[in-house]
Amino acid sequence: MASSDHIRSVAERYAALITAHDADGVAGLYADDAIVEDPAGSAPLVGRDEILAFYRGAIERVRPERVTVTGPVRMLADGSTAAIPLQSRSTRDGRRVVVDIIDIFTFDEAGSISSMRAYWGPENVNPA
Amino acid sequence: MASSDHIRSVAERYAALITAHDADGVAGLYADDAIVEDPAGSAPLVGRDEILAFYRGAIERVRPERVTVTGPVRMLADGSTAAIPLQSRSTRDGRRVVVDIIDIFTFDEAGSISSMRAYWGPENVNPA
Repeated sequence: MASSDHIRSVAERYAALITAHDADGVAGLYADDAIVEDPAGSAPLVGRDEILAFYRGAIERVRPERVTVTGPVRMLADGSTAAIPLQSRSTRDGRRVVVDIIDIFTFDEAGSISSMRAYWGPENVNPA
Repeated sequence: MASSDHIRSVAERYAALITAHDADGVAGLYADDAIVEDPAGSAPLVGRDEILAFYRGAIERVRPERVTVTGPVRMLADGSTAAIPLQSRSTRDGRRVVVDIIDIFTFDEAGSISSMRAYWGPENVNPA
């Protein structure tokens, strides 16, 4: 199982790698067969290739300026799952926006992210 | 579908009703056939009677002093689901503790909570 230190480290690296526009680095946090829904309920991306393409596109389109972990990482006792509050500052379509997000990550035994579901919607996208 | 104003209102009422030790009020926010996992991954409580018994027991055992919504409520565009950061200050076993939690609520068409999964673990229980 993933340790709490490892989970916190992955959350911080996830935010830092998006801030650095490093899509390969972000995809490298995921297991080969991981599943991503961003936002939750959308068609799942399956596997690291689809996940890498997604982050490349998102970073190109959204131009993240800074992604930060904004509060305590909540983690289940068994180390399987964490809920992570994040805030993204970016430029979308030429406008600077701030987006508040909560990501649910699950982890495999090697400590890679096995799934991610991102909770956010139009209400959470506001002028920066 | 639940409106964003309704979802925010339910989140605030949920926190206020627990703060007020009003288990019946909390259970009344749920649909008759709602499902609760607290923490996520534990045996689900099914139906309002089980949910009421759970909140009665939790309020008796945990003695909440104040439950607050600590950040933006993240909600999916379709109004089906919200992720809510909460903090509970309480007295457990005679010790004052603060617990950081993220709840995922889903809503039915009437605006009642149809499911709740609470993300927290031992790492999130700290001295107040």
